[in-house]
Amino acid sequence: MVVKPQVAKFPSIQLDSGETLSEVNVAYETYGELNAECDNGILVLHAFSGDAHAAGISEEDGKPGWWDNMVGPDKGFDTNHYCVISSNVLGGCRGTTGPASIDPATGSPYGASFPLITIGDMVRLQKMLVEHLGIKKLLAVAGGSMGGMQVLQWVVDYPESVVSAIPIATTLQHSAQQIAFNEVGRQAIMADPDWKDGNYYDGSGPMKGLAVARMVGHITYMSDESMREKFGRRRSRGRTPANEVSDLFEVESYLRYRGEQFVSRFDANSYLTITRAMDSIDLSAGYHSFGEALARSEARYLVISFTSDWLYPSYQSQQIVRTLRSRNLEVAYIELPSNHGHDAFLVEVGELTELIRDFLANTFRVMIARRHNQI
Amino acid sequence: MVVKPQVAKFPSIQLDSGETLSEVNVAYETYGELNAECDNGILVLHAFSGDAHAAGISEEDGKPGWWDNMVGPDKGFDTNHYCVISSNVLGGCRGTTGPASIDPATGSPYGASFPLITIGDMVRLQKMLVEHLGIKKLLAVAGGSMGGMQVLQWVVDYPESVVSAIPIATTLQHSAQQIAFNEVGRQAIMADPDWKDGNYYDGSGPMKGLAVARMVGHITYMSDESMREKFGRRRSRGRTPANEVSDLFEVESYLRYRGEQFVSRFDANSYLTITRAMDSIDLSAGYHSFGEALARSEARYLVISFTSDWLYPSYQSQQIVRTLRSRNLEVAYIELPSNHGHDAFLVEVGELTELIRDFLANTFRVMIARRHNQI
Repeated sequence: MVVKPQVAKFPSIQLDSGETLSEVNVAYETYGELNAECDNGILVLHAFSGDAHAAGISEEDGKPGWWDNMVGPDKGFDTNHYCVISSNVLGGCRGTTGPASIDPATGSPYGASFPLITIGDMVRLQKMLVEHLGIKKLLAVAGGSMGGMQVLQWVVDYPESVVSAIPIATTLQHSAQQIAFNEVGRQAIMADPDWKDGNYYDGSGPMKGLAVARMVGHITYMSDESMREKFGRRRSRGRTPANEVSDLFEVESYLRYRGEQFVSRFDANSYLTITRAMDSIDLSAGYHSFGEALARSEARYLVISFTSDWLYPSYQSQQIVRTLRSRNLEVAYIELPSNHGHDAFLVEVGELTELIRDFLANTFRVMIARRHNQI
Repeated sequence: MVVKPQVAKFPSIQLDSGETLSEVNVAYETYGELNAECDNGILVLHAFSGDAHAAGISEEDGKPGWWDNMVGPDKGFDTNHYCVISSNVLGGCRGTTGPASIDPATGSPYGASFPLITIGDMVRLQKMLVEHLGIKKLLAVAGGSMGGMQVLQWVVDYPESVVSAIPIATTLQHSAQQIAFNEVGRQAIMADPDWKDGNYYDGSGPMKGLAVARMVGHITYMSDESMREKFGRRRSRGRTPANEVSDLFEVESYLRYRGEQFVSRFDANSYLTITRAMDSIDLSAGYHSFGEALARSEARYLVISFTSDWLYPSYQSQQIVRTLRSRNLEVAYIELPSNHGHDAFLVEVGELTELIRDFLANTFRVMIARRHNQI
């Protein structure tokens, strides 16, 4: 299935910071058809470096989407039954307005003047998109990692608009360690003289700093065990510090490759903007507690974590579950066994497919039943 | 106790690479007196960024040594009974010959031309120092992290010269994840244009890259829990990417501070040289197995790891223990409870003090008993 990204345009969006951003674009894709009742819409939310291309084959570069193994006909998010929507986040660099976009007020890229963005701002723009597509209430919002944070923010900010929520490998708030890893990435970018305080769009940009930041990320996405299985202490040909060809550990070559590859598709200012949003998420803002914030909605939950994920460890998902259960909300929690670390949410398809397929089918039945009861 | 670093000079050292390094200096300190039999000498071996100043108060800057809580009168390494020796490693930048030293062949700093160093080379130079001090057989070699690797290398390379070994929070070899974290640090340094392929001694050097490298290190030295306890999500004043004063998370300010602080006392080329040595350690080189290599010695062992250490996890110490036990070597293994992550080996003094004091006293008795039996 070849898919083509679409763009929705909005005159402006109000941000949590108080600022207003004008002429906002949102890149999005849809998979499956919206039914006549407009009640089979599912929003899937990408992680930090993802984009709108969640499924199918990109018309542009022929690549499958980041959740192609989960979204499609007969897959976990079965597009024979549901209309799945995916969009690039605000502050991103993959079609949605972000720091590299042209500021209509100046005719130049925003760069350093791009405002601080929150997860709430990302979700607000998604809500505008979903309404633009004619959907008042989503059957489900689902996503892993930063996508899972958006899932929770959706429930808090639009409690009437979400029938169910699937937060995967995520957290109510970043720990000091999670902030610390993001900060190292930011420092690597800002240490690069080509960053130029964020106003680098007439040059190459901080390519080396961004590559280093991505390398740190990749280590945190894998597990000690998955790295041992994938690389061990095997050697391969590479370059020494002095740029001579030499034996390197395979894990070194891999990290360098992934770092360099990332630079070609990601904007360093988006890296700064989005990691800041993740670090500062506060779902309880304006409420007395996480529980009070989440209890505004009657959404059903499927909360999933993975045993070897040390970046978003299971104890964080378990905190979400405790918060929901303490408010008598309907929540299923599954800790899936996996060696893949945080990457598991993109990799472990087998059991996840069944869990999500069943949860969605059941949610649809519950929704119809509730509706009949209300009549 | 104010201590003054001393320097031993050697005309040359043969390296594992086949190269010879001329006019080699070793910075060292000693604490306590060597007895008439010269059999109460203990060598303590510093970790990656440590130096010869293990204990007492530095004459130079008034600071206590990195293991001052463990080395001194009535402490774990009791200098009323033992003569403790500590030296800076080969390839370092704290008084021992390293990349920043003057190459006698050129009159300029070695820089990029400094040869590849192994843990075996470090230990060879330590052996030269110890003999220079009149010690043929050490009562103990002890150290954590990279110091622990040197402990094991001592046993393999000089099996007759070590009565006991105390490897702490260490490993037989680096895992892919350990190599990966080191590689990120190296890449951060080499990405800095001020690195200049290692020949930067006429300039400021890669200060920003080195600071980023150190920040990564600090995260891996702490634990998720100790970071939560120390910083949580507290905010403090700091600077934004655009260099404006703003609220930062305390953990961000801390990492920046530690990064900047490190730059003033450490050389980037030493960072590259020493991490390469750690990554490439191969205790079994020339033998069929780790067991065969270690079984050359009759040294007694005290192997220690810490519960929350995820950089050198307990399973790596347990592999050392299994290797030793499979050869019927005398080994005590203790996994100490701690929230401090890898830092624990420098922080958890209480129980460690008793364990080491008892182990050393017992080792001394065993050594004397063995000697009498031989007569």
